[in-house]
Amino acid sequence: MAITSRDVARLAGVSQPTVSRALRGDPRVATETRMRVESAVAALGYVPSEAGRSLVTRTTKRVGIVVSDLTNPFYPHLIGPLHDTLEKHGYRMMVFTERSDSQISIEQLVDGSVDGLVLLTSNVGSELPTELNRRRIPFVFLNRESGQGLGDAAVVDNQLGGRMAAARLTALGHRRIAGIFGPLETSTGRDREMGFRLELADAGIGLVPDLTRHGPFEFKTGYQAMTELLALPEPPTAVFCGNDVVAIGAVNAALSKGVRIPDEVSLIGFDDIPMAAWEVFRLTTIGHDLEKMAAAAAQLLVERLRGGVDSSPRRVVLEPQLIERSTLGAPAL
Amino acid sequence: MAITSRDVARLAGVSQPTVSRALRGDPRVATETRMRVESAVAALGYVPSEAGRSLVTRTTKRVGIVVSDLTNPFYPHLIGPLHDTLEKHGYRMMVFTERSDSQISIEQLVDGSVDGLVLLTSNVGSELPTELNRRRIPFVFLNRESGQGLGDAAVVDNQLGGRMAAARLTALGHRRIAGIFGPLETSTGRDREMGFRLELADAGIGLVPDLTRHGPFEFKTGYQAMTELLALPEPPTAVFCGNDVVAIGAVNAALSKGVRIPDEVSLIGFDDIPMAAWEVFRLTTIGHDLEKMAAAAAQLLVERLRGGVDSSPRRVVLEPQLIERSTLGAPAL
Repeated sequence: MAITSRDVARLAGVSQPTVSRALRGDPRVATETRMRVESAVAALGYVPSEAGRSLVTRTTKRVGIVVSDLTNPFYPHLIGPLHDTLEKHGYRMMVFTERSDSQISIEQLVDGSVDGLVLLTSNVGSELPTELNRRRIPFVFLNRESGQGLGDAAVVDNQLGGRMAAARLTALGHRRIAGIFGPLETSTGRDREMGFRLELADAGIGLVPDLTRHGPFEFKTGYQAMTELLALPEPPTAVFCGNDVVAIGAVNAALSKGVRIPDEVSLIGFDDIPMAAWEVFRLTTIGHDLEKMAAAAAQLLVERLRGGVDSSPRRVVLEPQLIERSTLGAPAL
Repeated sequence: MAITSRDVARLAGVSQPTVSRALRGDPRVATETRMRVESAVAALGYVPSEAGRSLVTRTTKRVGIVVSDLTNPFYPHLIGPLHDTLEKHGYRMMVFTERSDSQISIEQLVDGSVDGLVLLTSNVGSELPTELNRRRIPFVFLNRESGQGLGDAAVVDNQLGGRMAAARLTALGHRRIAGIFGPLETSTGRDREMGFRLELADAGIGLVPDLTRHGPFEFKTGYQAMTELLALPEPPTAVFCGNDVVAIGAVNAALSKGVRIPDEVSLIGFDDIPMAAWEVFRLTTIGHDLEKMAAAAAQLLVERLRGGVDSSPRRVVLEPQLIERSTLGAPAL
């Protein structure tokens, strides 16, 4: 059992309401009494209940981070910068994580334990943002958005990034190009694929259905799809991956088949997570500033929590850029 | 502003205390009134405040996970299994994360927002466990412990694991052996190093001070130390790394210097994180069952929260095992 104000009252020899009044700085409490209460608080290591305080102020100074897959190396890199920006504004961070977003219970997010939420893994058409709006809980989308214009968002221009990847591959002379895309129910997966396809179409190149794959943004998606693509009678000369984690799976699959990158097949990812720069990968990728994106999301939410912001959704859209490393080359003859 | 019981009362046309009573199932509330309240609750999407409920029950059915470095690929692998075991017992999980453990404020952990805590990144001699005991907050150490016997713990036998690594290296004929150890202020770093040194001493082999390094359990610790070791006039023929993340840094450093593993230098890690099995690494390591360890910690804490457990600390110690892959060979001549 935790120490309560009852214990403090007993030790200080005062009533429980007097303890509350003393700790609130109520002027009706005599200085001598307040000092006695404070000594008892220090001796017992008493901390006023968060629940009691919340009931009075109706704020918690806490922000919830909703993320369904922490084992994906992408998300932890957003959590550090989120933490720092929120802390600067006096907010603590609590991470809510489930195996999938659909398992995250709306009740635990809206029961008053946090003032607002940062949504990292919302799917397109997700019900959560609608519910949060209905219950007037402030939130912000980070990286992914539900695509209904329901809230503030900090994202990268995914479609432009997809275009940049395709433009680079075609400039190198690639024509037989494959795509290992993310899920269509994510805004990142969908928009990167759309940009990639549009740019290829502009260059008069079609994406052969045989050479396209979809899957979750995971290592094994890239590993399995790349294994299949390399086993085709006529494998692709270049592969675009929906994100770096998928690309890293693809690199490992190529290595296990003894296929050399970029000599035999070129590869490009998306996100520029720190791992992409490791010597074993030296992955060419479409980068964006993860720290800046996370900080922007935190900033949007804090402004929303402080009030005085117009209710219409605001979007911060970051520019992607091509990060050249060692996984692209001209097509093998 | 969130929806409150005041809004429900207004819509249902009853008083606020009646709403509370109706939702508690108080028999003094007429069925017709309760139905009116329930309709209003459904229409407004009202969720009873967590703060109000906690004040009544003094429990939250929430467990806090304290972890200082989520970007370290090791920790996320413990969070999934923790989540599943806690959920099975009706507990929700909240992750508290800071840049370092010393920044985690005791106040936010003991303000009644969680019933108990899982400590993942405690240092040896950390004050947090002492404070938690003083405030009678149940907790469990997972993977690392503070070494004062202050609480329940689920750990691997780190000293035995260190011995196993040294035994394997000496059996292969290595004599000029290096260690890139973790921090001495962590129980994992300290015990792995101790076991490694003891086994070498038993074999009559000393660890040359020139060939030992210490640093945080991070990629760059391994990268930098390995770069230094390989630049020595007489480099080691084998290197033990305090964990897999450090070993992966070392592999990348070797690659950047064009040094082949295991032909020119052997390498062994600790933990067997999923990444160790990737084709690009195929890291030989001292493995242990991360899922089992996390589940054991959750189980210990749940038993503690339910009460009826003797107050003396309990320890679950898992056996490590050698996972042979492709980074060990006989010493180069």
